[in-house]
Amino acid sequence: MLKKTILKLSVCVLFVFIQAAAAAQPDQGGDAAGMSPEGSGEVVAQLQKQALSSGLAWQLLSDLTSEVGPRMAGSEADARAVKWAVDRLKTLGFDRVWTEPVRFPRWVRRHESAEVQSPHPQRLAVTALGGSPGTNGPLEGRVVQFDSLAALEAAPPEQVAGKIVFLSQRMLRTRDGAGYPETVPIRTRGPFVAASKGALALLIRSVGTDSNRLPHTGNISRTETGNPAPAAALSNPDADNLMLMLGRDDPVVVRLDLDVGLDGEATSYNVIGEFDGREKDGRFVLLGAHLDSWDPGTGAIDDGAGVAIVTAAARLAAGLAERPRHGIRVVLYANEEGGSYGGRAYAERHAQEVDKHLLGAESDLGADRIYAFRSAVLPAAGPVMDGLAKDLANLGIERDPSGAPFGGADVGQMGKLGMAMVDLEQDASGYFDLHHTANDTLDKVDPESLRQNLAAWVTLVYLAANSNVAFGPLPAAPQP
Amino acid sequence: MLKKTILKLSVCVLFVFIQAAAAAQPDQGGDAAGMSPEGSGEVVAQLQKQALSSGLAWQLLSDLTSEVGPRMAGSEADARAVKWAVDRLKTLGFDRVWTEPVRFPRWVRRHESAEVQSPHPQRLAVTALGGSPGTNGPLEGRVVQFDSLAALEAAPPEQVAGKIVFLSQRMLRTRDGAGYPETVPIRTRGPFVAASKGALALLIRSVGTDSNRLPHTGNISRTETGNPAPAAALSNPDADNLMLMLGRDDPVVVRLDLDVGLDGEATSYNVIGEFDGREKDGRFVLLGAHLDSWDPGTGAIDDGAGVAIVTAAARLAAGLAERPRHGIRVVLYANEEGGSYGGRAYAERHAQEVDKHLLGAESDLGADRIYAFRSAVLPAAGPVMDGLAKDLANLGIERDPSGAPFGGADVGQMGKLGMAMVDLEQDASGYFDLHHTANDTLDKVDPESLRQNLAAWVTLVYLAANSNVAFGPLPAAPQP
Repeated sequence: MLKKTILKLSVCVLFVFIQAAAAAQPDQGGDAAGMSPEGSGEVVAQLQKQALSSGLAWQLLSDLTSEVGPRMAGSEADARAVKWAVDRLKTLGFDRVWTEPVRFPRWVRRHESAEVQSPHPQRLAVTALGGSPGTNGPLEGRVVQFDSLAALEAAPPEQVAGKIVFLSQRMLRTRDGAGYPETVPIRTRGPFVAASKGALALLIRSVGTDSNRLPHTGNISRTETGNPAPAAALSNPDADNLMLMLGRDDPVVVRLDLDVGLDGEATSYNVIGEFDGREKDGRFVLLGAHLDSWDPGTGAIDDGAGVAIVTAAARLAAGLAERPRHGIRVVLYANEEGGSYGGRAYAERHAQEVDKHLLGAESDLGADRIYAFRSAVLPAAGPVMDGLAKDLANLGIERDPSGAPFGGADVGQMGKLGMAMVDLEQDASGYFDLHHTANDTLDKVDPESLRQNLAAWVTLVYLAANSNVAFGPLPAAPQP
Repeated sequence: MLKKTILKLSVCVLFVFIQAAAAAQPDQGGDAAGMSPEGSGEVVAQLQKQALSSGLAWQLLSDLTSEVGPRMAGSEADARAVKWAVDRLKTLGFDRVWTEPVRFPRWVRRHESAEVQSPHPQRLAVTALGGSPGTNGPLEGRVVQFDSLAALEAAPPEQVAGKIVFLSQRMLRTRDGAGYPETVPIRTRGPFVAASKGALALLIRSVGTDSNRLPHTGNISRTETGNPAPAAALSNPDADNLMLMLGRDDPVVVRLDLDVGLDGEATSYNVIGEFDGREKDGRFVLLGAHLDSWDPGTGAIDDGAGVAIVTAAARLAAGLAERPRHGIRVVLYANEEGGSYGGRAYAERHAQEVDKHLLGAESDLGADRIYAFRSAVLPAAGPVMDGLAKDLANLGIERDPSGAPFGGADVGQMGKLGMAMVDLEQDASGYFDLHHTANDTLDKVDPESLRQNLAAWVTLVYLAANSNVAFGPLPAAPQP
């Protein structure tokens, strides 16, 4: 009954949005719409205007974070998130809504704590890394610090064996998030390197740019060989404090208790919604975001924002009085955090349908403003990208000539098979303050930035879905 | 042995500071020094210069937060803090160092958790309020929200009885911290008002200006009559999330488990260090800060910074080649957080010695810059305050003509008995982002601001201790 009430409310709210979308939309006059390399004129201008005053993405994000909240893959809340998403996509009027199962090893977090035992007893703010084994009860060990993974790799095993390794490398803040891939190997590979040298356990400085006592979780590598050491992240202030202690003469002994670990297999679901295009040719633009989140926060920026943005963009573009030429498929992926399980499952299942996927794009870097875009498309689609550049310039977005798009952890799996891709690049300056922490909550999202994202996305979606050129497939390149 | 090593290191470091202080200091030429209403010339200039390049306050603060860390009154760590402080004051060469016992009810925090049970299960970031009783195991109740304490007070008991009250008032950010006294009654009095109307428990929005998932603890009233309800603070983002849920139709049920409460009596100690003046007349300037801290953070800004600032200021002023005329007494108070136990015990023990206390001042509002000062002194001391105004202007500090000084929660207890007082007013804009949270850690302190504090304090201490005018006693006014 309770859920029925909420559903009714939501239907009501969403109906208003849909009506507004339809009302605001003039006829577009057939095939010419959205195809001009000079930009798409009236339709795009209208869609952008609508997006910049739309409350739809905020409503979806607010509902997801309050009605579901944290939704770690394989948890009870993850199942609620799947139900929530299916209900919402149906309520929003997607022509088809379905799920596709995704299997993965379930990892659970029951208890975690750490404290300095000597010389100066203090609790440490700590969180286990996803995929880490537990410690089988509390363990104690002397801490040995390395300032990089390379330094640990170069260390003789006798310096490490029987100790708790502490990797203290600090992530740098950059707009493009480049500090993350530079630092994240301490989290992904560190546990394996530490174990290979006989370490009892691994502590890392959180891979994050903030100074809150909220450690950053995140997954260890899924593909490294060997057994990982039990591994956890300290908050940045705790890492600083530990370094102060280590900077003196006395040995520092830490007690670590991680009651976490793998717990059988779980099934979750990619939630997929599709709007037909007016040509009903079975071809579509693919928009992706991931539905799961880490457990400490409510998954607002990672990746509730992406879910809200791509869903709302599809809804707005499909709300035109005349549908775009081709379809729009939204995939809300399962278990990205555990290792792109949803993205890989989707790519495996749809590997023979790359040609149906006109173009793919993923939103998974929070809700801050988009400042640039880059693309990998066939030369024939160049004029459409030129039009996109022109239309996105209205939103303060530049063309980024650097390299090929990433495509995203999930959508990029289809990119590996040749699907054309566009990255809408968000300002990541503040993202890694919050990423994978308890602070990943709705209040951190700026509604105006969220609307700017929506405006950019609906522009991309419309131009791509309404185009009659081939964006791909591209020659599938083996990825590193 | 371990402690001996650290002590040796510290002695070494501090010796360097003391030597530097002595070396930097020219002779002052007797009684005239520090008494001119035009400012104190060379001596103050030299002390300020020295303070602005001193590492002493930072060293003390860094050591206290790393070597002791959280030190809730009556805990094992509190006892370590007392020992740490005695050792440090001795090492710094105070002429006398002693302790005075302070008795109080011990309050302990063992476990705390809260979660929304329905309609949308989610954990909430929560911390019990100091002095709160426990819940005797988990309790569940429907949440009823009030946006102010006045609204709760006006509510008919049948609206409250058997429910969990949620007080959602938000603290405003101001430079002078005025938002705190405006809001803090939800924390201090709320538990008593809620209980008087039959509430099961009280949840408050944290009395704090941040948006981190780190709830603000703090004490409930020590003087209200009646029994308090079990009471806890939600972080601001959790309060926001709860309000989102409460804004819909469905009842919100929360499960609250607070294993906390009073646990007998404890004894801690005011730690006191004194430098003689050159007149050895038994009169002194009183500098105060509190040694205890709340348990979630390491007590860097509350009140490690105050401990460091007043201790270093005394050390610098007493390090002059010619000591100031009168003495300097530093009191590091016990259990301020539980209700100014140290300050009240000190005032009770020293009630007959008000005339020995020339002037008192307290540092207990973090480590951000001092922007103003205000004083309550006898008219005869007006010229010294004029000189202070001139000397502090060098540091960007203005005279605040508004009202009488607060004196501080501890030092102010002697102010009630007539001791003259000065407030050095710190910028509190950011203080209540961190206050009473796990985020109260060393990295939040700006070393440059800390040195500006030290420079202001050493100016005050020198001018007051070297003066031959009477600052007080003032007529003792009954305090509200």
